[in-house]
Amino acid sequence: MNEQLIKLVKHKYQVEFTDPTLLEQAFTHSSYVNEHRYLQLADNERLEFLGDAVLELIVSEFLFGFYTKLPEGKLTKMRAAIVCEESLAKFAKECEFDQYIRLGKGEENSNGRQRPSLLCDLFEAFLGALYLDRGLAEVEKFVAKVVFPKIKSGAFSHEMDHKTALQEILQRNGDIDIEYRLVHEEGPAHDRQFSVEVSVGGKVIGTGIGKSKKMAEQRAAEFAIMNIKK
Amino acid sequence: MNEQLIKLVKHKYQVEFTDPTLLEQAFTHSSYVNEHRYLQLADNERLEFLGDAVLELIVSEFLFGFYTKLPEGKLTKMRAAIVCEESLAKFAKECEFDQYIRLGKGEENSNGRQRPSLLCDLFEAFLGALYLDRGLAEVEKFVAKVVFPKIKSGAFSHEMDHKTALQEILQRNGDIDIEYRLVHEEGPAHDRQFSVEVSVGGKVIGTGIGKSKKMAEQRAAEFAIMNIKK
Repeated sequence: MNEQLIKLVKHKYQVEFTDPTLLEQAFTHSSYVNEHRYLQLADNERLEFLGDAVLELIVSEFLFGFYTKLPEGKLTKMRAAIVCEESLAKFAKECEFDQYIRLGKGEENSNGRQRPSLLCDLFEAFLGALYLDRGLAEVEKFVAKVVFPKIKSGAFSHEMDHKTALQEILQRNGDIDIEYRLVHEEGPAHDRQFSVEVSVGGKVIGTGIGKSKKMAEQRAAEFAIMNIKK
Repeated sequence: MNEQLIKLVKHKYQVEFTDPTLLEQAFTHSSYVNEHRYLQLADNERLEFLGDAVLELIVSEFLFGFYTKLPEGKLTKMRAAIVCEESLAKFAKECEFDQYIRLGKGEENSNGRQRPSLLCDLFEAFLGALYLDRGLAEVEKFVAKVVFPKIKSGAFSHEMDHKTALQEILQRNGDIDIEYRLVHEEGPAHDRQFSVEVSVGGKVIGTGIGKSKKMAEQRAAEFAIMNIKK
C-alpha cells in the first residue's frame, strides 16, 4: 500500500478510503499488472468505466444547477469540454496523481506517466474507486474541490458565445432584460462597420464594433463580461 | 396536469412525484412550448440533458456489478448499446410514454410521436425529472423494473462475442475452467472445416463447426449458451 498516496488524498482533499485496496487498484495500470502476473493484481480499467459515468452525472448536475438558463445544446457542449481527455488529464496532474500510478517498465520508458489518455483514465478510475468505497456524495465533495472552481472561474466558458455567457452571468439571480442597440454604422456596403451598445436597466455596460451587427453584439457582450469581472 | 399519466407511472411503476410539474415538464416537447408561448412553459430538453447522465451512471453501475469479469472495453460497448437512441425509444414505447407527450401540431402531423430521437429524449427527460424530484435511488428502482430485466435476459449480449458471453454466464458464481478442444478437422486447405467442443469440468456443453478454429469455438459457445438457456 502506498502510504504517501493515502496521505496525499487525505490531507489535500479530506478523502479517506474505507478499503484502501480500491485506491491502490485505481492507481494500478494494466502494464504494471502484465509485468507482475504472479501478484494477480487487478488493473484500473473497470474502475475507469464506472468513474467516467460518475463524473458525467456530477458535472451534469452542477451545470444544470449553475447555468439555470442555458439550453440543453450549450450544456452538452460544456459538459463535453469538461469531461474530456485533455481536461481530466490536467486535473489528474493538478492532484499530483501522475506521481503515484504504478506502471510497467515499457510504459514508464515511453513516458506513459505524462500521456494524457493514461492520466485521464487514472482520474476517472480514482473517482470510480471512491464511488464504490464511499458513495456519490463523497465523490461530489471531491469534484467540488477540484473541478467546480474551474467551471465557476469560466475555464470552460469559451464553449459559450459571449452573448450567452453574459446572459448567464446576469440572469443567475433572476430574469433581467439585456438590451443590444445599434448606435452607429458607417463605411461602404462592402466594408461597413457597426457599433453596438449593450445595456441593463438603461445602463450601458459594454460597447463593441464589428463588420456585422452580430459581431458587434458579441464584442459588446465580451467587453461587458470583462467589465463585470474586474 | 395529466392525471392519466400520473396514474400510469404510479400504478405501473410505483413512481410518485412530489412535484408533478416536473413530470409534466418531462412530457412537454419544445414544439408544444413554441405553439403555446403565452403559457410560458418549460420544455423537456434540459431535463433530458440531466437524465442522460443519470441513466449512464445507473446502467454503468449495474453492468459493473453484473458482469464482474467483463473487461472495460466490452462494458463500454454494452453500455453504448443500452444507452442509445434506438434502445431508449423502445423503452419509452414499452412504458407507453409516447401516448402522453405534448407535441406541437407540426410535430404531431409529421409523426413526431413515433420518432425515435423524440422518444429517446422523452425517456431521458423523465429520468431527469425523477432524479430532481426523488433522487438517484428512486430512479434506480424504476430503471431496475424497466431496463435491468432486458439486460439480464441477454437483450444486449450480442455486443459480446459468444465466448465472452458464455464465460460471463458460467463465471458469475466464481471461477470455472472452460475448455475449448479441436476434435476434428477435414477438407482441403482452401476449404477446411474445424469441429470444436466446449466443456466445463470434463462435461461437453456445446459443439460447433466452422471454417476456422476461432469460428468453430464461437459456434460451440453459442450452442452452449442456447443449451443453458433452455
